[in-house]
Amino acid sequence: MREMLFVTVYFVIIYGVVLISALVILYLAKYIFKQDKGNKKMQEISEAIREGAMAFLKRQYKTITIIALIVLIIITCSDYFANKSKEGVDAFSIAWHTGIAFVTGAFCSAISGYIGMYMTVNCNVRTAEGARKGLNKALQIAFRGGTITGLAVTSLSLLGVTTLFLIFGGASGNDVLIKEAPSLIVGFGFGASLVALFAQLGGGIYTKAADVGADLVGKVEAGIPEDDPRNPAVIADLVGDNVGDCAGRGADLFESTAAENIGAMILGVALYPVFGVKGILFPLVARALGILASIVGIFFVNIKDESKDPMIELNKGYGITTIIVLILLIFNVKYMLGGTLPNGNEINYWLLYGCAVTGIALGYAFVVLTNYYTSCDHRPVQEIAKSCETGPATNIITGISIGMESTTLPVLLISVAIFASYKLGEAALGGIANSGLYGTAIATMGMLSTCAFVLAMDTFGPITDNAGGIAEMSGAPEKVRVITDRLDACGNTTKALTKGYAVGSAALATFLLFSAYLDEVKKILGKPLDSWFSVDIGKPEVFIAAFIGVMLVFLFSSTAIRAVGRAAQYIIVEVRRQFKEIPGIMEGTAKPDYASCVDIVTKGALKEMILPGIIVIAVPILVGVLLGKEAAAGFLMISTIAGVVMALFLNNSGGAWDNAKKYIELGNMGGKGSEAHKAGVVGDTVGDPFKDTAGPSLHVLIKLISTITLVFVALFR
Amino acid sequence: MREMLFVTVYFVIIYGVVLISALVILYLAKYIFKQDKGNKKMQEISEAIREGAMAFLKRQYKTITIIALIVLIIITCSDYFANKSKEGVDAFSIAWHTGIAFVTGAFCSAISGYIGMYMTVNCNVRTAEGARKGLNKALQIAFRGGTITGLAVTSLSLLGVTTLFLIFGGASGNDVLIKEAPSLIVGFGFGASLVALFAQLGGGIYTKAADVGADLVGKVEAGIPEDDPRNPAVIADLVGDNVGDCAGRGADLFESTAAENIGAMILGVALYPVFGVKGILFPLVARALGILASIVGIFFVNIKDESKDPMIELNKGYGITTIIVLILLIFNVKYMLGGTLPNGNEINYWLLYGCAVTGIALGYAFVVLTNYYTSCDHRPVQEIAKSCETGPATNIITGISIGMESTTLPVLLISVAIFASYKLGEAALGGIANSGLYGTAIATMGMLSTCAFVLAMDTFGPITDNAGGIAEMSGAPEKVRVITDRLDACGNTTKALTKGYAVGSAALATFLLFSAYLDEVKKILGKPLDSWFSVDIGKPEVFIAAFIGVMLVFLFSSTAIRAVGRAAQYIIVEVRRQFKEIPGIMEGTAKPDYASCVDIVTKGALKEMILPGIIVIAVPILVGVLLGKEAAAGFLMISTIAGVVMALFLNNSGGAWDNAKKYIELGNMGGKGSEAHKAGVVGDTVGDPFKDTAGPSLHVLIKLISTITLVFVALFR
Repeated sequence: MREMLFVTVYFVIIYGVVLISALVILYLAKYIFKQDKGNKKMQEISEAIREGAMAFLKRQYKTITIIALIVLIIITCSDYFANKSKEGVDAFSIAWHTGIAFVTGAFCSAISGYIGMYMTVNCNVRTAEGARKGLNKALQIAFRGGTITGLAVTSLSLLGVTTLFLIFGGASGNDVLIKEAPSLIVGFGFGASLVALFAQLGGGIYTKAADVGADLVGKVEAGIPEDDPRNPAVIADLVGDNVGDCAGRGADLFESTAAENIGAMILGVALYPVFGVKGILFPLVARALGILASIVGIFFVNIKDESKDPMIELNKGYGITTIIVLILLIFNVKYMLGGTLPNGNEINYWLLYGCAVTGIALGYAFVVLTNYYTSCDHRPVQEIAKSCETGPATNIITGISIGMESTTLPVLLISVAIFASYKLGEAALGGIANSGLYGTAIATMGMLSTCAFVLAMDTFGPITDNAGGIAEMSGAPEKVRVITDRLDACGNTTKALTKGYAVGSAALATFLLFSAYLDEVKKILGKPLDSWFSVDIGKPEVFIAAFIGVMLVFLFSSTAIRAVGRAAQYIIVEVRRQFKEIPGIMEGTAKPDYASCVDIVTKGALKEMILPGIIVIAVPILVGVLLGKEAAAGFLMISTIAGVVMALFLNNSGGAWDNAKKYIELGNMGGKGSEAHKAGVVGDTVGDPFKDTAGPSLHVLIKLISTITLVFVALFR
Repeated sequence: MREMLFVTVYFVIIYGVVLISALVILYLAKYIFKQDKGNKKMQEISEAIREGAMAFLKRQYKTITIIALIVLIIITCSDYFANKSKEGVDAFSIAWHTGIAFVTGAFCSAISGYIGMYMTVNCNVRTAEGARKGLNKALQIAFRGGTITGLAVTSLSLLGVTTLFLIFGGASGNDVLIKEAPSLIVGFGFGASLVALFAQLGGGIYTKAADVGADLVGKVEAGIPEDDPRNPAVIADLVGDNVGDCAGRGADLFESTAAENIGAMILGVALYPVFGVKGILFPLVARALGILASIVGIFFVNIKDESKDPMIELNKGYGITTIIVLILLIFNVKYMLGGTLPNGNEINYWLLYGCAVTGIALGYAFVVLTNYYTSCDHRPVQEIAKSCETGPATNIITGISIGMESTTLPVLLISVAIFASYKLGEAALGGIANSGLYGTAIATMGMLSTCAFVLAMDTFGPITDNAGGIAEMSGAPEKVRVITDRLDACGNTTKALTKGYAVGSAALATFLLFSAYLDEVKKILGKPLDSWFSVDIGKPEVFIAAFIGVMLVFLFSSTAIRAVGRAAQYIIVEVRRQFKEIPGIMEGTAKPDYASCVDIVTKGALKEMILPGIIVIAVPILVGVLLGKEAAAGFLMISTIAGVVMALFLNNSGGAWDNAKKYIELGNMGGKGSEAHKAGVVGDTVGDPFKDTAGPSLHVLIKLISTITLVFVALFR
């Protein structure tokens, strides 16, 4: 009875936070929509961006819907037939539970992407106009716009998982139903990651194809500046910032929070004898408290001294969020995970709290390291800029080398964090089965607790990027452009940091999702959850699966990068055609045909996202079906490791090249127009598909492989 | 008694082949040294190359000697102290056995490098002069020079391992001594791989630093052609071909044949109850027969129709060698591995022969795939060349993407080969313990049986490269240069193919060396050799070790690539200085100071090879000491997998860029001097450290990690 009361309280907390979050979103939206949209020219440009972005999203979702329907049929049928012959199992019930979860996950993920996109295209022009009134005004509009996305995405994920858990019997008080429910929600994570994969891939290909195309023909061939209205691809380029960075990253982090919640809940089932339903609800409540902390932190972002770097304000908000989370998690851990072990010993919940702190510290360390490797203020970017003096080749060589080097410290830190939280978990729970793993689960929850705030900072990026583009294209006065440029530089930093955060959380979560998979395997094999299932890499099939896992990461990166090249070719041809066939573009007397560029790159990106998408879905299933469950576990583990390292390499080298070019533009190594600058532009272009297409798509790949193996495990040999 | 007689016969075969090989080497050397060395100018240039190369080798060996002495002290001490307290173990004896083996291995490896280098610097000028008399003459000189290296390296490796085995009690008839001997020879492999690592690293850094430096200042800045005598770095560039491709690759393949022999012998110990000493001697006899077949094949290389592609002749020789090996291996397998199992069943030696055929087929498939991805005749290179039309950035993007893609089929083929030979081995030997592994060992032996011939083709590359340079610099007539150009193109192909072969053999051998490590672990733990030691990647320390394994590959590649960039900077500065300070260089009236360039790049390369070298030695030991034996096994396995995939990526993308540039120079995409060609040069330069420094060094890294863990396992937690 007392237990039921507590459970009710937890559900109230979760739904309460979701409600508060919704109210805050409404309040912020009201604030934004009452802002001035600027003059006619600005509105025209913003309208073109909005139309292009929405048209892309509509077509993309149509494609994804078709793929999702096919996958839906496959998973429900495979679930049904895999369980049909089993004694005492209602195969039909399992199939439709998974199916419903899948559809809900896919739908929520799509909504998240839509909200992110809708807010950006409405905030960009208002931010540009706000810049006329000063830095703080512009910052407020852009950051509040980002906040709406951040809160919507995390709350929606929490709402979806919690509600499915409730519906599937999470509050029924029936042990069997409660322990079965988290496994049935796996479909939610799979649906979310499927949509996220295509959103990130399609968006990533779109944004970089447009960017590369616009730059190559505009800047390099025609010699006109970035965001110049004479460039026919300029609107497509601005649309790209939205569909790649907003819709893509939104779906990515939606999926992260969902998949990692589910992984932790499955692990909670394994510890049911110790914690009961509280162990399963713990990750959900932790997430709710994180959202609450983020809401408080958001309102502290406010510039008083306009000469200061806006990044300081964002960091202040992040710091406050972190401190609040640190305090709330104490209560979270104490009341939900405190108590006695089955053997009568007291649980040392401070050690479990230590796991959460480890996770938060890891997130912070990742942000610091990403900053070190990709900001202009440190050795790596400056070394790359220096190598530009001897031409593009040395620039590329140095950038690749530094990108590879940048994987070292993050991997060591992840190793330490996993090891520490594992040992803390074991120590706290007296070394019972799965206790170490639960420690890593708590660390993951800790790391992701500030997710809403980080996502707000991230979406801030494309809004300011767009605002800068609108200001430039509408011929806004110098004063306004200085402000949008400052915000844009700040947005570039936040975007890079979020990538570091996203890959860090993916890395930490791997171990968690891996163990969730093993728990499923144990259930299918009828083994107790506290037994140990070993994945022996000395067996040839496991070794081969690991080999293929590493190869998959390379193959996927290859196809993602190449897709950008192919899609960029389409737009290059089109821009060249317009320059040739429409007289007066270069003189500014004729208007280029923006819409046809948007249309071409939309079609191109959607076409090119199919192949890498299919590869990621097909290979894990084939490995499992052909080589068996243990091999699939080895595959999952090693492809994740390789994926994390490769993503670090791609994100950091791309980010470093981008800022090396900016560093030269600040007047170093000969400044703009020098040979060094030309070499820097080459590096920046090479880095674009690395950091905005392949890298972020790898984050999704990692989690998709986890959810896909979880969903299809019943089919495996 | 009959057993002893057979063993004697096997030793006679091995030493007989080594003797024949020595006689053939003498015969070929006599042939080469009686050839004409050309006019005074040619001799001058050749003398400068010889001096530079020998000076580098001398200094490099001095550095390596110091490192090797330090390592020697560490391994003998660690062996002694790790075994001191053990009951019934003579720690002192183990320590000095390992020490002697280490010194012998290091010494033989160094000799191999020296022979390769000595032959090239003596053959290059004679090949250039031979080209005056026709294609066949030049081909004969170059290929026979390469053959000397190929035979010397493989015979020396066989001689060293066999003799150590004999000395350590291999023919004593004493079971205990025989079973202990292969483990004691591990030091030989470690010594060889240590020297190979630094030889390949130092040589690889040298060759590419000189190449990049010469190209960037000569071709790009000053606009003078390749191999132009006005370029002060031109001699350093030609020296580089020798120290990188000859000395480096020679040491690399010496090490491969040694390490893989030892790995197979250790596995033979595990199957001692089945095969007796024959199972241990099998790999040595297989290697001897391979050398014999190569000697026959070599004499078939002879061009009658001078208008034909010389590659056809080389392929003919390779084909004949393969066919002879296929025949000889039947007897090899039948007489050494035929017989009855302990349970009385007959061994199906045809299935074991199937393993060998699998290995040979894999070697062939790797050569074909490498050719597909790096030759001008196929889609990948042409696609890269096409992307040069839109500038250097798209060239780099396409090249990286294709390089990543090129890892797919090789990995799938390796997987199939490992799986097939494992299952064949199990089937042949009735599924007894280690039978599957022995199948993969036989496959590895099959693949490496043609090694002497392949190495001859490989060393042919730098000889023709140098000959072309000498012809160019000495102003030889057009007719001669056409011939050296044709041979040079052929040499580029053979170099690329050998790299494919080397990485393929490394990949196949991984599984073998991994199991040798596990056998050592079992011995130390006092477990029987037919028990199973599982490496469970679900344990956090194993998972972390795997993570660090992937990271190490990225870190090592990073430092190797960066080392080239750094060393190239030294030479760029020097060449610029000479152009500025020595008047008349560009007009051809003053001679540039070649020697100072050679000297600068020598110092630079040796300095820069230290850091990556230390990383490779330190990390595996640290992982083993901190995380334990099982974690070290996971580390070994996953770093090898990642190393193979990364090496494939680096080798193939580099080779493809190189040939894409050549494809443009043939008149495609606008030909020489076009914008596409400039973009192609950037790609070629980026690819240089990939394919000639980091990629080949990774082959050595893979095997060094195996031998290092084998040698230090007693120290691990």
